Amino acid sequence: MNDLPFTFTLPMPQVIPSRVDNHIERRLSALRGQFFDQETYHSMLSKEDRLIYEVYEIRRPEVEGEFLMGISIVHPGKVGREFFMTKGHFHSVLETSEIYYCLRGEGFMVMETPEGDTSVEALSPGKVLYVPPRWAHRSVCTARQEDLVTFFAYPGNAGHDYGTIERQGFRKLVLDGENGPEIVDNPRCK
Amino acid sequence: MNDLPFTFTLPMPQVIPSRVDNHIERRLSALRGQFFDQETYHSMLSKEDRLIYEVYEIRRPEVEGEFLMGISIVHPGKVGREFFMTKGHFHSVLETSEIYYCLRGEGFMVMETPEGDTSVEALSPGKVLYVPPRWAHRSVCTARQEDLVTFFAYPGNAGHDYGTIERQGFRKLVLDGENGPEIVDNPRCK
Repeated sequence: MNDLPFTFTLPMPQVIPSRVDNHIERRLSALRGQFFDQETYHSMLSKEDRLIYEVYEIRRPEVEGEFLMGISIVHPGKVGREFFMTKGHFHSVLETSEIYYCLRGEGFMVMETPEGDTSVEALSPGKVLYVPPRWAHRSVCTARQEDLVTFFAYPGNAGHDYGTIERQGFRKLVLDGENGPEIVDNPRCK
Repeated sequence: MNDLPFTFTLPMPQVIPSRVDNHIERRLSALRGQFFDQETYHSMLSKEDRLIYEVYEIRRPEVEGEFLMGISIVHPGKVGREFFMTKGHFHSVLETSEIYYCLRGEGFMVMETPEGDTSVEALSPGKVLYVPPRWAHRSVCTARQEDLVTFFAYPGNAGHDYGTIERQGFRKLVLDGENGPEIVDNPRCK
């Protein structure tokens, strides 16, 4: 891998990086078991496997001291009352953090620790979010028409642990309420 | 220290973070021995100890897995033909990288390895710069009137090694030429 310094641009408003090593598309089928309203989930999936979010990755060696970076784009939409969101994960090396910088859109980062602490932070353009070590994180797009776009960076050795979240979801859900987004307890996490 | 997730904004165009734990001001006197034209340097310093650059830091534990973040603001100006710049440094833990995101202004990041490899990358708004492990780095503001403003993040355990650079400067200088900025060899580094 090239070990020279390099730059890339995040051209607005499209924000797709000028350098991309990997493009991930996550569709509705990849979020099986994650949305609260499973009846609506299966009904939607039977009609179309919609694109929920995309990640453009800039690759670096997956070792301590390096950073993995990229752009996350969560598309607008809902499954029942629940907004489209990423799968969300812990880092395999739990004691590693992550930085997000919101470039476009609006939404939330839903977070929790293995001990059950929870935090939900609002995202909007120009905001930096610091996810300290130990906090699982999932981004949620709450705009009706606009993508939620964030730039992210995390340590090269962090890794991803999806399994813990896949089993029961996050402790907090973000639902579309009468007066805007509502943060509610996930009834599956008692 | 608070271990909850947190957000802060980088409000444009001022870009001073909404949360700041430490504010550093570096004046001309702090860059003793760094500018090529030492006669002009001492002449300027005898009149006024001008502000060259500022750093707004968001503090975190200085350990592996955390990130240290902040905003760097290099003001426009020159010492002779050489543009205002930061002191520049290696990381004490050499195998650690750094990310910059340029928010405003124009300039360059001047970089080099202990082995003598050099790299100079242009900075402008919307550009992300990746400084791989082992590369010392210094930012240079080349606009005539506007600050060079970057957001930076680096591993909590990286540390700073200023001494190596203070002894002989970087191998490349950024000078104001007839047709814009010129990258030239530093005659002190043979």
